[in-house]
Amino acid sequence: MSYAEYFASRRDEQLNELNEWLKIPSISALSEHKKDILTAAQWLADTLNKAGLEHIEIHPTGGHPVVYADYLHAPGKPTLLLYGHYDVQPVDPLNLWTTPPFEPNIRDGKLYARGATDDKGQVFMHIKAIEAILSQEGSLPVNLKVCIEGEEEIGSVHLTSFLEKHKDMLAADAVLVSDTSLLERGRPAICTGLRGLCSLEVDVMTASTDLHSGTYGGAVPNALHALVSLLASLHDDKGRVAVDGFYEGVPELSPLMREEFAKQGLDEDKIREGLELSALYGEEGYTFVERVGARPTLELNGVYGGFQGEGTKTVIPKVAHAKITCRLVGDQNPQHVLDAIEAHLKSHIQPGAKVEVRQMEKAFALDIDPSNPFLQLAADAYGKVYGTRALFTKDGGSIPIMESFSRILKAPIVLMGFGLDDENLHAPDEHFNLENFDKGLLTIVEFLKSAGTV
Amino acid sequence: MSYAEYFASRRDEQLNELNEWLKIPSISALSEHKKDILTAAQWLADTLNKAGLEHIEIHPTGGHPVVYADYLHAPGKPTLLLYGHYDVQPVDPLNLWTTPPFEPNIRDGKLYARGATDDKGQVFMHIKAIEAILSQEGSLPVNLKVCIEGEEEIGSVHLTSFLEKHKDMLAADAVLVSDTSLLERGRPAICTGLRGLCSLEVDVMTASTDLHSGTYGGAVPNALHALVSLLASLHDDKGRVAVDGFYEGVPELSPLMREEFAKQGLDEDKIREGLELSALYGEEGYTFVERVGARPTLELNGVYGGFQGEGTKTVIPKVAHAKITCRLVGDQNPQHVLDAIEAHLKSHIQPGAKVEVRQMEKAFALDIDPSNPFLQLAADAYGKVYGTRALFTKDGGSIPIMESFSRILKAPIVLMGFGLDDENLHAPDEHFNLENFDKGLLTIVEFLKSAGTV
Repeated sequence: MSYAEYFASRRDEQLNELNEWLKIPSISALSEHKKDILTAAQWLADTLNKAGLEHIEIHPTGGHPVVYADYLHAPGKPTLLLYGHYDVQPVDPLNLWTTPPFEPNIRDGKLYARGATDDKGQVFMHIKAIEAILSQEGSLPVNLKVCIEGEEEIGSVHLTSFLEKHKDMLAADAVLVSDTSLLERGRPAICTGLRGLCSLEVDVMTASTDLHSGTYGGAVPNALHALVSLLASLHDDKGRVAVDGFYEGVPELSPLMREEFAKQGLDEDKIREGLELSALYGEEGYTFVERVGARPTLELNGVYGGFQGEGTKTVIPKVAHAKITCRLVGDQNPQHVLDAIEAHLKSHIQPGAKVEVRQMEKAFALDIDPSNPFLQLAADAYGKVYGTRALFTKDGGSIPIMESFSRILKAPIVLMGFGLDDENLHAPDEHFNLENFDKGLLTIVEFLKSAGTV
Repeated sequence: MSYAEYFASRRDEQLNELNEWLKIPSISALSEHKKDILTAAQWLADTLNKAGLEHIEIHPTGGHPVVYADYLHAPGKPTLLLYGHYDVQPVDPLNLWTTPPFEPNIRDGKLYARGATDDKGQVFMHIKAIEAILSQEGSLPVNLKVCIEGEEEIGSVHLTSFLEKHKDMLAADAVLVSDTSLLERGRPAICTGLRGLCSLEVDVMTASTDLHSGTYGGAVPNALHALVSLLASLHDDKGRVAVDGFYEGVPELSPLMREEFAKQGLDEDKIREGLELSALYGEEGYTFVERVGARPTLELNGVYGGFQGEGTKTVIPKVAHAKITCRLVGDQNPQHVLDAIEAHLKSHIQPGAKVEVRQMEKAFALDIDPSNPFLQLAADAYGKVYGTRALFTKDGGSIPIMESFSRILKAPIVLMGFGLDDENLHAPDEHFNLENFDKGLLTIVEFLKSAGTV
């Protein structure tokens, strides 16, 4: 039986199995889901065991646990380390989901659920590919280690120290990750660059109590005014970040790099129309792919303060909040960037208002050499299944922990993504195109088989 | 028995009675409290009846009902119309209340509850003053009509048409209102100016879905960026509203008016320290009392969009919201002001973002002539009880319906307030100083008795 026949005959059963995992609301950012995180980790451990992997262990950390498993019966062959995550993003605003986020639903060949593409669906494909080879051939052509964490969506808080502590257990010749996207439908890509990430929370405070806008309006500071002025000051009118020192370590784009980006042939009008936007918006002088792939950014992810209920409330709020993340490139140092933003906020705050800053995640950007044999074989594997070899691209996203894997394990990272950019990652109606589920299973099998030849 | 003795002997009983009313969460802005509004109206009707008033009726309107009552047994004497409101403001953030908003609690001679000072506590004093005169003297020295509404905190939506429909029933020689404040403890004031009010809600929209900041960050519009830039553009760096046409109809402050304001002798440092602020903030070139009493203002009452939960979410929000109110002075036309702000917002919105505006309340400012005999007698009544005659002041607040009363009934408005500015109106821990409850009862009795002589 060919692998295509093998997977076709098990498709419904495997999707039902994936749905069990997707139903577990393993939201790492919200402490009330701590129990669900553990349930999702246990489900994963059971499924790895069923697939034929060994030494399965749920390792506690200071936060959510790491699930480990391995197969070490290919002496003389390379060792691959599979990394992924079983935690998911929060789901609000809930009312914008067509079907509930934790009740998986297939429509038009797409599987809708929180975590469908990011990252449970993609991790599940690897497990099923391994299970298939073991079942069809009795052994794997490589040694394989599995390390799936539960804190990716909150910045992999405890994984770096876990890697340092267990670097012998996790030692590998390459790290295999599926948490990125195809360029577009039918055009596979292997990401060779990830942006870094840093994040912070901002509180602006004014009077000791909320005040009535009749009695005090116009004569006292308003925390919301102070906050919006402060946040508006973070960008100039050319879309550039207006924070002193923010661009330190950002490489200039060479003509050669600009050519590489242009090769992706992304149609900006099509993107704009797909998002129903009247215009794209970003730093002047750069194309869409350059902005996402090679430029840093500072985004407001949440802003709130004052009255949010129905109707009017004539209140002058005493406190207002913002959540900010930055994507970093090149040699930008996340700590320096956070310090620069904090200094900017403290020096631009309106008289009468105070600002407090909490620095959160910090991750460097990562560049990967595409000439590495594991990356070349991965590109070939896509070619066999998709009929077109994978392009080597730079992705705007961050998998903050990749830089730690690269530094601590000193192994190349092979980012074989099977998602699509419009699958609503981190948004309502997240979904996974099942075409890439089917092709992905076969691509992973092809890659594992060829990796044994390195 | 003197009135002082009369009230002293009934104090506990009367406060218990007021507490029954304060326990009813009659929040007009929130539709889930519709039943509580009706309960509060019925409680009021019963209490007016018990006080000896007649023709009590709960008049339905398109929204929350108006409670009417009268006493018309003083032929040849003036007729006063008592106005107030039985609805209250929302109570969030609930966690900032020392004791729950609808469980009245007395601490340090202050009655803490939502509505204690705004306006149930003050309406209650009038009812008890009327009851006292009827019980002690068998009749009132004036004709009296009572008109208490349930929509003041949402802009008196249906009261203007109610006044027009019932202008004969409500006809009076003066309108009596207690919904304003003393200048400070021991310094009574009669307000002769109220600011107008207009309000609007703003939605900013970008893409058709929330987007992932890795995949799209830096290359698409972010609804929160667009909103904070837009809101920041509403003021210049001198604290002035930067909307074309906003100041049309605002009178210049004459040297005489500035002298009147200066007479109030307000200590700005004391205000600043009381609010625990490092600095006051407002339009350059004006004092605190001028800013509040004679200058218009534009305040952000609520701003929200994106992720508000615990932790980080790397989302580019597709929508963000703001709630704005303006206080107006002089001849500013609320409709023109709303149109000017809407035009500003639409012309300043960032490329790629859309803005939608919903215009809400509209009320003109009001000026009252202090030489009117009812205002003079009211000032004297304070003098007898407080030992210092009331000053005539301008208040920064708005009772939007006052302008309608003035225009439709063609009667002077007598604003006899018994609140204090620091009683947390519209904020957590709203309270009413019982010293002014005790003195207010006596002041109202004095005023009603002297009003019979006009």
